[in-house]
Amino acid sequence: MKPLILITNDDGIEARGIHSLVEAVQHLGDVVVMAPDGPRSAQSSAITMNTPLRIWKHFEKDGLKMFRCNGTPTDCVKIAVYNILERKPDIILAGINHGDNTSISVIYSGTMGAVLEGCIEGIPSVGFSLCTHDPRADFSEAMKYASIITEKVLREGLPKDVCLNVNFPVGVKLKGFKVVRQANARWQERYVVREDPNNNTYYWLTGELHNNEPEAEDTDEYVVRNGYASVVPCHVDMTHYATVQQLKSWDYEETE
Amino acid sequence: MKPLILITNDDGIEARGIHSLVEAVQHLGDVVVMAPDGPRSAQSSAITMNTPLRIWKHFEKDGLKMFRCNGTPTDCVKIAVYNILERKPDIILAGINHGDNTSISVIYSGTMGAVLEGCIEGIPSVGFSLCTHDPRADFSEAMKYASIITEKVLREGLPKDVCLNVNFPVGVKLKGFKVVRQANARWQERYVVREDPNNNTYYWLTGELHNNEPEAEDTDEYVVRNGYASVVPCHVDMTHYATVQQLKSWDYEETE
Repeated sequence: MKPLILITNDDGIEARGIHSLVEAVQHLGDVVVMAPDGPRSAQSSAITMNTPLRIWKHFEKDGLKMFRCNGTPTDCVKIAVYNILERKPDIILAGINHGDNTSISVIYSGTMGAVLEGCIEGIPSVGFSLCTHDPRADFSEAMKYASIITEKVLREGLPKDVCLNVNFPVGVKLKGFKVVRQANARWQERYVVREDPNNNTYYWLTGELHNNEPEAEDTDEYVVRNGYASVVPCHVDMTHYATVQQLKSWDYEETE
Repeated sequence: MKPLILITNDDGIEARGIHSLVEAVQHLGDVVVMAPDGPRSAQSSAITMNTPLRIWKHFEKDGLKMFRCNGTPTDCVKIAVYNILERKPDIILAGINHGDNTSISVIYSGTMGAVLEGCIEGIPSVGFSLCTHDPRADFSEAMKYASIITEKVLREGLPKDVCLNVNFPVGVKLKGFKVVRQANARWQERYVVREDPNNNTYYWLTGELHNNEPEAEDTDEYVVRNGYASVVPCHVDMTHYATVQQLKSWDYEETE
C-alpha cells in the first residue's frame, strides 16, 4: 500500500504553495488535501468553536482528492483525520507557506499549527515555508527539497512527539539543509492608524522581525540567510524546565 | 508609582472571570483592561490579519479603565502595549479563564496566547484558569490565589523569557499551589455530525482530555486533581533540543 499523505496549509486551497507541495510529493504516495477555503495566516493553533465546520469536495482527479473547509489549519487536520481519511495518514505536510515561519513566527503560524496538531495525533508532520510573500516567487527549489525531506521522513520516521519546521530561502539555489534550533527573535511592531469614511478609527498591524542573535550559526534564521533550508525539530511541551526547578521554592501550602 | 497591571482574557469583556480577576488584584496597582468584545476561546496565538482592529472604551470608574476590541487575546496585548498604555505594564494577567488550561490545552488556549505574547514583549505574564465551564462557579479561592501569585511575581519578577500558566481546581478549598511541568496529555475528540434545515451537513468538535501519565505527581494535571493550584513556567522556544542533536546526521550539502 502506498503511503497516505495528508496536505494542508494556512493560505487556503487556492494558494500556489499548496499546489506546488502536492506536485512535489505526489510521486511518494496517495495525496489527500484538506485546506481552508481562504487565507488563515497567523491562526496559530486556533480551533473553530462557535461556528460549525462545513466541508466541501473541491476537486478529484487521477487519485488526488482535495477538500476545503471553513475552519483553521488545525481544524483541517482534525476533521481530515477523524472524518475524511479512511486510515491514519503516514505523514502530514503543511505548506508550502507563502512567507517565513522561522524563529518566533512558529508561535503565530497557522502552517505550524497544523503541523503541531499532526504531532499531537502521533503522526509524523512537517511544515514547509518559503521566505517570501511574492505571489510570483519561484517554488522550484522549495519543491525539490520538500520532496527530499518528505521521502526521508517517510523512510526513517520522526522521534515521538516531535515534528519539523522547514524554511526555504528564496531566490537562491539551495546549498542544502541544516537541522538547527529556533532563533531567539521577536516581531517589532506597530499599528498603522487610519480613519474609515465614517470617521471611526481602525488599526492595522505591521512590523518586521528583529533577531536577538544574528550571529548564532545553529539557528534557523542564520542558515536561511546563508543559502540553506532550515529544519527545526519542534514539540508541544511548553514547560521551561530550568524554571520549574528554580521556582520550586515558591511552592505554597495552606496551614490550618 | 503603583504597578501598572494589564488584564485581558479570551472569554470576552462580559465574562465573570475577568471581573473576578480585576477585583482580586486591584489593590496591587493601577489596572487597565483590554479584552475581546466577545468569546475568543481556543484562539491560541492567533493574530487578526485580514480585518482591521477597532477599539472601544468600555468603562472607566475609580481609576479602572476597561477597553474592548474586535481582536484575539494576542491582539489585545499588542494593541494595549503599543497604542493604549502610557507606559510598559509591570505585569500582564489573563483570565480568570472559564475552563482548564492544563497540559496540552496550553497550545490551543487564547488565555495562554495572550500570556505568551506578554512574555515575548519582555513583560512578566501570568494566565489564570478555573477548571470548570459552569458559569455560576465559585471564583473565591481562585481570586485569593490569583492575588497571592500576582503579588509574588510583582515583587520577585520572573526569569527572562518565562511566563506562568496557573490552573485552579474547582469546588475545593485549595491546599496551596505547586510549581510543576505540563502533563503529557491530548484531547480525544470526535465531530458530532448534524444536518441544517437545508439538508447540508455540519460538524461540531467535542471530546475529553486523555492524560498519558495520570500518576506523574510533578504535572499540572496531577496537582489540580489533588487540591492544589498548578503553576507551570512556560516559554516560546518550541525547539526539541535532543532531536536537533539526533537529526544532525540528516544535514545535507549539495555537491557540484
